[in-house]
Amino acid sequence: MNEIFKTHLEKFIKIDEREFGEILKFFRIQSVPAKQNLLEEGKVCRDYYFVLKGILRLFFLNEKGVEQTTEFAIETWWITDNMAYEHGRPSSFSIQAIEKTAFLSISRENQENLLREFPKMEHYFRLIYQRAYAASQMRMKYFLSYSKEEFYFSFVKSYPEFVQRVPQYLIASYLGFTPEYLSEIRKRQIS
Amino acid sequence: MNEIFKTHLEKFIKIDEREFGEILKFFRIQSVPAKQNLLEEGKVCRDYYFVLKGILRLFFLNEKGVEQTTEFAIETWWITDNMAYEHGRPSSFSIQAIEKTAFLSISRENQENLLREFPKMEHYFRLIYQRAYAASQMRMKYFLSYSKEEFYFSFVKSYPEFVQRVPQYLIASYLGFTPEYLSEIRKRQIS
Repeated sequence: MNEIFKTHLEKFIKIDEREFGEILKFFRIQSVPAKQNLLEEGKVCRDYYFVLKGILRLFFLNEKGVEQTTEFAIETWWITDNMAYEHGRPSSFSIQAIEKTAFLSISRENQENLLREFPKMEHYFRLIYQRAYAASQMRMKYFLSYSKEEFYFSFVKSYPEFVQRVPQYLIASYLGFTPEYLSEIRKRQIS
Repeated sequence: MNEIFKTHLEKFIKIDEREFGEILKFFRIQSVPAKQNLLEEGKVCRDYYFVLKGILRLFFLNEKGVEQTTEFAIETWWITDNMAYEHGRPSSFSIQAIEKTAFLSISRENQENLLREFPKMEHYFRLIYQRAYAASQMRMKYFLSYSKEEFYFSFVKSYPEFVQRVPQYLIASYLGFTPEYLSEIRKRQIS
């Protein structure tokens, strides 16, 4: 399972077996069943998660008490409440496994030690954050410029496998509309 | 003017005068009048901008032909279309000066050379992107959970100086509503 992380790292940096073994010591490997929470809104956010197998989602409870999903992480994606993680503060989000999920986790202190000991991991994380930010800029553009219906169909087109794996009500939540509205769009598409 | 950049860098990394002089060689310093575009939607995005004095904004033309602002950058903030910048592709956004603005710019090639020559700049940029991404996660939460009115007032409360400097119609655009709606909210507040 750790090979998934090594193969992923090698896309960004050169590492040998010995180094990878050393790097891995900063992480914990864990597995949780579907529906289990890794982090709860309001609790201190201590870890950064890297998905090896499965899917995690980031969400918050809106004022109506409805869960609003704002991010997903599938294999080789990172996820956490970055603001709370950096400052060791209570989280503004919850994180939950959608399927049975195996993941690596690293605490803020361990990440700092890792970066000090392996400066090449600064390069790696710089690229990870840079791309996450770039994707969020584009997401904001899509969010503001597409109609809800267009947004859904562009999402289906971009991530067909994803749409198969994730329950429809979570996709509706991510795209910012109700399950009923999503159901309506899909019916219109079929008819 | 370059001192602004040095003081800013020193919040993240230790650098001496000689190093700072070397680092600065990778950048160009420029100044543009208000309303001038630094980047135009559809043109290849070559540079990453660091504001020394003034304000830049990132925007796109929506389907109605209206400019939709999605980001601002004031003193010591970075701004670009990150996706287009990393891949040297046509930009999905335009960047324009709101006031007369002095800024540093760095090309993708120069940034890569800088990072190779000064690994401590990997640490710096890792933190810059990490925080930008953390802020975008929170922005998405506010965007989805606040009413337009609450969003405006939380923005005013968080960035009072900013609201004074930026024309109201741009703030309306950033918050995702029309200038007329903003004017209405503000009238309600006063009365």
